[in-house]
Amino acid sequence: MYNRVALVGLGLIASSMFWAMKRAGIEAHVAGYARSAQTRDTAREIGLCDSVHDTLAACVTDADLVVLCVPIGAMEAVAKEIAPFLAPGATVTDVGSVKRAVIEAVGPHLPDAVHFVPGHPLAGTEHSGPRSGFAELFDNRWHVLTPNGADTQAVAQLRAYWEALGANVDEMEPDHHDLVLAVTSHAPHLIAYTMVGVADDLQRVTNNEVVNYSATGFRDFTRIAASDPTMWRDVFLTNKDATLEILGRFTEELFALQRAIRQGDGDHLHEYFTRTRAIRRGIIDAGQDTAAPNFGRRS
Amino acid sequence: MYNRVALVGLGLIASSMFWAMKRAGIEAHVAGYARSAQTRDTAREIGLCDSVHDTLAACVTDADLVVLCVPIGAMEAVAKEIAPFLAPGATVTDVGSVKRAVIEAVGPHLPDAVHFVPGHPLAGTEHSGPRSGFAELFDNRWHVLTPNGADTQAVAQLRAYWEALGANVDEMEPDHHDLVLAVTSHAPHLIAYTMVGVADDLQRVTNNEVVNYSATGFRDFTRIAASDPTMWRDVFLTNKDATLEILGRFTEELFALQRAIRQGDGDHLHEYFTRTRAIRRGIIDAGQDTAAPNFGRRS
Repeated sequence: MYNRVALVGLGLIASSMFWAMKRAGIEAHVAGYARSAQTRDTAREIGLCDSVHDTLAACVTDADLVVLCVPIGAMEAVAKEIAPFLAPGATVTDVGSVKRAVIEAVGPHLPDAVHFVPGHPLAGTEHSGPRSGFAELFDNRWHVLTPNGADTQAVAQLRAYWEALGANVDEMEPDHHDLVLAVTSHAPHLIAYTMVGVADDLQRVTNNEVVNYSATGFRDFTRIAASDPTMWRDVFLTNKDATLEILGRFTEELFALQRAIRQGDGDHLHEYFTRTRAIRRGIIDAGQDTAAPNFGRRS
Repeated sequence: MYNRVALVGLGLIASSMFWAMKRAGIEAHVAGYARSAQTRDTAREIGLCDSVHDTLAACVTDADLVVLCVPIGAMEAVAKEIAPFLAPGATVTDVGSVKRAVIEAVGPHLPDAVHFVPGHPLAGTEHSGPRSGFAELFDNRWHVLTPNGADTQAVAQLRAYWEALGANVDEMEPDHHDLVLAVTSHAPHLIAYTMVGVADDLQRVTNNEVVNYSATGFRDFTRIAASDPTMWRDVFLTNKDATLEILGRFTEELFALQRAIRQGDGDHLHEYFTRTRAIRRGIIDAGQDTAAPNFGRRS
């Protein structure tokens, strides 16, 4: 295992990693850094990280694992700034939701003596910030590594680390990762944001009605649409092509279903809704969601 | 309160009504009917309803409250069949998700001596059938009545009944109800069905990937898209205009956001995602969803 882990950026993912490491009994010293003094104060107050540093240099010095947990748009600047302080043989990884963009932003700035193994934990909540983390976040969720030719020993070590945090680990090509995530995450988020924005905007329905009658479906969209705006802005800007491709397919299909509604084609609708029902069963069987109705909410 | 309540159709809503009535200590005899012999057998096996009947006539005879809990497309045939057996002074209500269509399908067939007070409980889960009900389903959820000129005494009595089942009761014009629900329920459901269908269909991403990596957003859509296909087919066919209007607005807005992505307009995206975040706070404050991250799922 590692001796010193540097967490750069102290939001939901980094704070969950810290608590998961402690739960796992990992003895590495965990050094933390956040750009905002307020976040660093909060981290010190709640005991997040074994040491909290006011500079990137102090945080990453002597670390044998450096984890970049900042929004994708901030990755390049951070990589440039930490590069001179990275120990030879150290592993640098990240938790960004897009992999090709991170590889292009970070890779060129890292010294040759460092192993760069990009990664993405497929886990999260709608909350953000240093207080939002919890040890169970990665349990039975998938962590995707996109090693992109990195040293196999470094990859194996990082894999073992994430498994200790509770995750299942998979490896993938960066571009394929970005396409898969456009389907399972990026397009759904944009769609949820859009639907919530439309409801908020509608002159003929009051906000009060939208809020009170949200339990009929809408409230589920609002959870996703409450996700961190900066993180998601960066996701869409850096996974542009794959996201737009999936949204194009989505719009085509939506138009086909709208046509079926307009023409009263009940058979088409019924067949479609029966097919989609089956996918949820697969997700529950794979342990990726609860079988309890309403996600376990009683009403 | 009522002396005999007839539940016509024994799915999620009717079975939840039965358990909620028993929890509330309502002493009325509850008579149940389902078209399918298998559903009736299940109801008898699990003690759902005080009596289960093989015919509509036997179920509704002598009832002072008749609740139509069948898909909207079945409402007219049921109304025709029960009309001769309805007791003078009885109240007929329903639980359909669209109100104008139910009023047109049911109203003309009911005798003048009967009070018709259409209604809609804004509650549900993705499960269906006689085993899916539970007493808490309506707690702190809204029940909308669209009395449409019905006798005020009958409306007041029905309001008190739903309040005893745990619901808050509101009154609305039928057309306004249908528009509000198009926003909070019907459009979100069609969008979720569409996204799940697209993911299922995509040749370049395997179903296994979609399932394993669903915790990043997609799985939430699959819950909604696992809802009853017959019920939802009927909703879209009978609330066509309002649903298509909202979907039109949705598509406009989606195109605007796609353009912002294509043009790299990060400010527009960030501003939009910040605004949508606020709505969830309103829903949580109104007690219409849990504040726990991930709907309370631990990961």
